Amino acid sequence: MSTGTFVNPGSAQVDTAASGHRDVTPAQERIEQRLVDNVVASFGACENPRLREIMVSLTKHLHAFIRDVRLTEEEWGKGIEFLTAAGHITDDVRQEFVLLSDALGASMQTINVNNVAYKGATEATVFGPFFVEDAADVELGGDIAFGAPGEPCWVEGSVTDTDGKPLPGSVIEVWEADEDGLYDVQRDAQSRTARGRLIADSNGEFRFWGLTPTPYPIPDDGPVGKMLAAVGRSPMRASHLHFMVSHPGARTLVTHIFPTGDPIGKKDTVFGVKDSLIKEFGPQPAGTPTPDGRVLDGPWSRTRFDIVLAPAST
Amino acid sequence: MSTGTFVNPGSAQVDTAASGHRDVTPAQERIEQRLVDNVVASFGACENPRLREIMVSLTKHLHAFIRDVRLTEEEWGKGIEFLTAAGHITDDVRQEFVLLSDALGASMQTINVNNVAYKGATEATVFGPFFVEDAADVELGGDIAFGAPGEPCWVEGSVTDTDGKPLPGSVIEVWEADEDGLYDVQRDAQSRTARGRLIADSNGEFRFWGLTPTPYPIPDDGPVGKMLAAVGRSPMRASHLHFMVSHPGARTLVTHIFPTGDPIGKKDTVFGVKDSLIKEFGPQPAGTPTPDGRVLDGPWSRTRFDIVLAPAST
Ligand SMILES: [Fe+2]
Ligand SMILES: [Fe+2]
Repeated sequence: MSTGTFVNPGSAQVDTAASGHRDVTPAQERIEQRLVDNVVASFGACENPRLREIMVSLTKHLHAFIRDVRLTEEEWGKGIEFLTAAGHITDDVRQEFVLLSDALGASMQTINVNNVAYKGATEATVFGPFFVEDAADVELGGDIAFGAPGEPCWVEGSVTDTDGKPLPGSVIEVWEADEDGLYDVQRDAQSRTARGRLIADSNGEFRFWGLTPTPYPIPDDGPVGKMLAAVGRSPMRASHLHFMVSHPGARTLVTHIFPTGDPIGKKDTVFGVKDSLIKEFGPQPAGTPTPDGRVLDGPWSRTRFDIVLAPAST
Repeated sequence: MSTGTFVNPGSAQVDTAASGHRDVTPAQERIEQRLVDNVVASFGACENPRLREIMVSLTKHLHAFIRDVRLTEEEWGKGIEFLTAAGHITDDVRQEFVLLSDALGASMQTINVNNVAYKGATEATVFGPFFVEDAADVELGGDIAFGAPGEPCWVEGSVTDTDGKPLPGSVIEVWEADEDGLYDVQRDAQSRTARGRLIADSNGEFRFWGLTPTPYPIPDDGPVGKMLAAVGRSPMRASHLHFMVSHPGARTLVTHIFPTGDPIGKKDTVFGVKDSLIKEFGPQPAGTPTPDGRVLDGPWSRTRFDIVLAPAST
């Protein structure tokens, strides 16, 4: 990947005193490293070894960042202001720190770390903030839109294990934004549309009507939106349809599928797109008979998603 | 410095795909590194090269932290909760993000980076949150306590450049907590005690009465205090007296002096103590004549601080 005209990203060897920061003398390096060592040592009395490990690593990387970029006091102050603004816009329904984590790819990296690639299993991606526990149960072949606006989309597929064995009874939860880019709960906290819970049949197969996914922006009226604007990034997410799939003995999968040819695609502002999750959503002209034998007034689309769950122990 | 029984701090080579995270396959490393590359590339269109540099370095170190510790989703959630709590306790008079930066040594490292050691010049330390612009002018030999409680302390010294040339007219601003560990503004925002502004005489010398410094805690009733308690760290700052010293043509110095034998000392919770800034505050029994020819009712102390300013261009 190119970083454009970016010059000198800094070498980030956090464990050595002579880390080669530009224009820094060995004596100055020692002063800076001594401080890192002091902060690390301050966690030596922590009785929780995992907490100690996290604080020590956080300290090393935080100090390496400050030293690598030679952070100015004014820039430090802007960082404090940014975090303060993020804290003040965050409330019960708006979580700016999650947005920040998303926009820096930290949420996606945490997903990666916790859903280590398993040979042949479907890849995971971000959970997002719009899942709800109490979505309606929907019969196979039913419509999860519940009146939400958008182009109808027929979705079918299978759930198997990594040996190809079908997993009948898998629980498939799906949710998505409508064609205005809004989730039900953004319009009305009590609303339950464009989401549903299905149970795979005795062959591990599933099918339902939903909406053809469209792009939508993450909330961009706060400090994270200002940051994205300042660096020339769009707040748009690639079009997607959320899945959470579970079965006893299998690792629960949280993922999306993304339509081919999406205008946002890999520029997804939360870095959730993986090649293996991009699926053809075939456009169907008005009048094309549907898989369940109907004729719709307008155009619709169809896609297939064959899901492979890793064993639970991975 | 020992980190106690800490095991495996992780290798933090942020620029390579094969960074040797424990129990991580090369295929998984590639997935994780590809994400880092994608996030870095997302800043490629940023037209401000300094902002781009900062965001790229922040991204690399943030991801290296997540990968090094194999951050769990639950731990990620606790991090979000911590930042949210810090944001919500922060207001016009309480800045939890600054406390966090202080407690992680990030404030002190920023000071280090911006006050690069200059041969023979006095070392800098943290500014702290309690400086005010409008402290009273105090004559040399006068009392900056203005009635604040504490043991009297005679402070004298000189201001010179790194060639030893006196810097007459240097502006010396001093401020400190009282014996209850409180700054004036913590008692009353309008109060101006235990602080003052002096002007060095024609020999670059200064002298004043203040208070013998005593330890005090940083505010520890918020998330930073909880963090310190969880890792077994004290919230106490080492006893200190703040100085900000300026002269035309010299680099302005922000520093403290710390009494020898302080019970907190190097365990200072913001890592501000440097060996060169530890000074003898000689105890003087009641009745000992003072340098300005008085006899006080009780004990007092005295110290000397010879200040060397670096040239302005460094
Ligand atoms: Fe979404
Ligand atoms: Fe202080």
